[in-house]
Amino acid sequence: MGKVFKVAIAGLGTVGGGTVKLLKQNAEEISNRCGKKVEIVALCSRRKTHINVDFDVSDIPWYDDAVQMAKEVDADAIVELIGGSEGVAREVCETAIKSGKSLVTANKALLAMHGNELAKLADDNNVNIAYEAAVAGGIPIIKSIREGLAGNKILSISGILNGTCNYILTTMKETGRGFDDVLAEAQAKGYAEADPSFDVDGIDTAHKTAILAALAFGVPIDFGNTYVEGIRKISARDIANADEFGYKIKLLGIAKVSDKGIEQRVHPCFVPKDEPIANVDGVFNAVVVKGDFVGTSLFAGRGAGERPTASSVVSDIIDLARGHDERFFGLSSEFTKVKPISTRDDFESSYYIDLEVEDKSGVVADIGKILKEENLSIEKLIQRGRGTKESNVVNLVMILHSSKEGGLI
Amino acid sequence: MGKVFKVAIAGLGTVGGGTVKLLKQNAEEISNRCGKKVEIVALCSRRKTHINVDFDVSDIPWYDDAVQMAKEVDADAIVELIGGSEGVAREVCETAIKSGKSLVTANKALLAMHGNELAKLADDNNVNIAYEAAVAGGIPIIKSIREGLAGNKILSISGILNGTCNYILTTMKETGRGFDDVLAEAQAKGYAEADPSFDVDGIDTAHKTAILAALAFGVPIDFGNTYVEGIRKISARDIANADEFGYKIKLLGIAKVSDKGIEQRVHPCFVPKDEPIANVDGVFNAVVVKGDFVGTSLFAGRGAGERPTASSVVSDIIDLARGHDERFFGLSSEFTKVKPISTRDDFESSYYIDLEVEDKSGVVADIGKILKEENLSIEKLIQRGRGTKESNVVNLVMILHSSKEGGLI
Repeated sequence: MGKVFKVAIAGLGTVGGGTVKLLKQNAEEISNRCGKKVEIVALCSRRKTHINVDFDVSDIPWYDDAVQMAKEVDADAIVELIGGSEGVAREVCETAIKSGKSLVTANKALLAMHGNELAKLADDNNVNIAYEAAVAGGIPIIKSIREGLAGNKILSISGILNGTCNYILTTMKETGRGFDDVLAEAQAKGYAEADPSFDVDGIDTAHKTAILAALAFGVPIDFGNTYVEGIRKISARDIANADEFGYKIKLLGIAKVSDKGIEQRVHPCFVPKDEPIANVDGVFNAVVVKGDFVGTSLFAGRGAGERPTASSVVSDIIDLARGHDERFFGLSSEFTKVKPISTRDDFESSYYIDLEVEDKSGVVADIGKILKEENLSIEKLIQRGRGTKESNVVNLVMILHSSKEGGLI
Repeated sequence: MGKVFKVAIAGLGTVGGGTVKLLKQNAEEISNRCGKKVEIVALCSRRKTHINVDFDVSDIPWYDDAVQMAKEVDADAIVELIGGSEGVAREVCETAIKSGKSLVTANKALLAMHGNELAKLADDNNVNIAYEAAVAGGIPIIKSIREGLAGNKILSISGILNGTCNYILTTMKETGRGFDDVLAEAQAKGYAEADPSFDVDGIDTAHKTAILAALAFGVPIDFGNTYVEGIRKISARDIANADEFGYKIKLLGIAKVSDKGIEQRVHPCFVPKDEPIANVDGVFNAVVVKGDFVGTSLFAGRGAGERPTASSVVSDIIDLARGHDERFFGLSSEFTKVKPISTRDDFESSYYIDLEVEDKSGVVADIGKILKEENLSIEKLIQRGRGTKESNVVNLVMILHSSKEGGLI
């Protein structure tokens, strides 16, 4: 590496455009901080006419084929901002590493599916993979876990990792409106995709959770063993019930060490209103990390978007330019150990149950009996009378004491 | 540097003891993460009989003279956990650097007073100074600003940086009790020193603010130009007033870039209750960083204590063992530029005023006239009637629209 650090960028959509802007706009600060100039030596995008960079890039060599660029270009690092777990993005990443270039990527789907092979490939080729932008946008959570808290045994991580879901849940809470209604509005505003399932069904959160779990616990990435439940079934009534009990509903990605192994799960959670993470609203993300020495730490910020994600991409570039030699998992891939993943039956939580039951003698006693047989006990209960004269239905909302999920399924 | 990274620890009080514990207890994880073993090659403390390490350290060479240890011992880094801006601590740090060893320190007072000279000395001797533990305990805020957000122009930093003050303010809020009463309790519980002035007068917060400002803005540390106001004058009534307006009172260290230069100030602030930082209570610390690309980020966690501070000390040791070569300010000290510091008159804020005025015709009009003459206008106002029949006093509590402090002094 000389006095210039050379990067080639594949993909000039929202994040790629932001990355070019940031490298140009803050070039002086960046070169002071690296002790060398960071130079964009090549660009590549599907459609040359639709790139989103705001800067004149006509003097920068252009490739139409990202894989060819990854292979041929004389660069210290390839920045992959194409996206998707297969196809061109995957090929670009593998080609970059095999040709001895470090990789900077924001591609959580690719890492969740193929991160282990890529990490091995990077070790074999003695290059780095930097992926701060893949999780929680502008929040430097990868660096914080891998380096800032590196002395700790990490006990658990839980995070609001998808801005679309957090925006929807926040808006439902603030307006009392239903899921479908708020989703449609989020789509109209560009906060949600036309096909929103990756976000609202929790898959994106699960990708990020699996990456964080691997990094925190020194295990291979295991997306397949992540329990995933999204927010489609959350109703305005659930949110009102949570509010009445003193909680907000947040979609959390959770990774923790239990006596059965490592739990990875994504599902809506009741979060006490006075916890700082409960007030991380709208498109913001947040991650709570518990370590054996540091205790509980919270990291919050913008989880997506052109500029915050570019901030993380460029911090990775600066790290590489400074000569930081960080292994993918914060340790050599030979040290990553396979640990058992506990199953859903073993998950232990307090559960929220919303029942509508016939208002007749003995029903509540019956429910109490069933709960008792399963060793479940009620921590908080709200009983609401009949809504209308015609209805014979009574509403029982309860929060149970902590128990294994096995007893509830 | 070989396959072992050798550290010598000077000072075995709370933080030093925690550091030894952490290095021993998590030795396996640490060596996996570094790719090498971290070995304690020497220890030194004032009183050998009072050390607080919980591990058998009888096999580790012992020095009675910390300066001698810093000079003589064959170590890659000296860990200075003695404390204080002068005397032995300062001599140990200078000696370590001059003898070609990197320095890990938690000493904010020393860095605030002499950080610039130490940074220059470290550059000249081609060693590193790592000081994560000097600011905000276990929160990896130094690393986050220096590396995680390194692509950004940092616009402002504001933080709850002193756990003692935050504990006192939180307890005053929760119990309605007065400052002196709560301080006495904090002293009894060991949360406040017998002489609490470093904490409650804001000096400790100012030390940390000056360090963060230098790092964020690439300027020399300038503790002398930090405006400092502590929490002694905060009354139970102020806290009740804030609550009524929708705020909590927090002691913040603030560093920001304005058109006049860099502002550094420490004073109690009204923080809106729904901001995540408002809910960072008790002994917890938090830092809000605004960058031009990342936007607003929040970092929160335990700001002091044996284990969280040890977490940061050891993360620094791991960084050095991994071969990270970070300059003190995140850039070579030759790049740190002297920028003008704006004076208190230029500080721009919304101000809170609590007046007791005689309840007679024309008083409110007079106040309005004075405010108008100074170009100050009222955003929120609460007027309270006479407390008792005997009293002829009326209480006017107001929050002004944003204005320069010059008009108020």
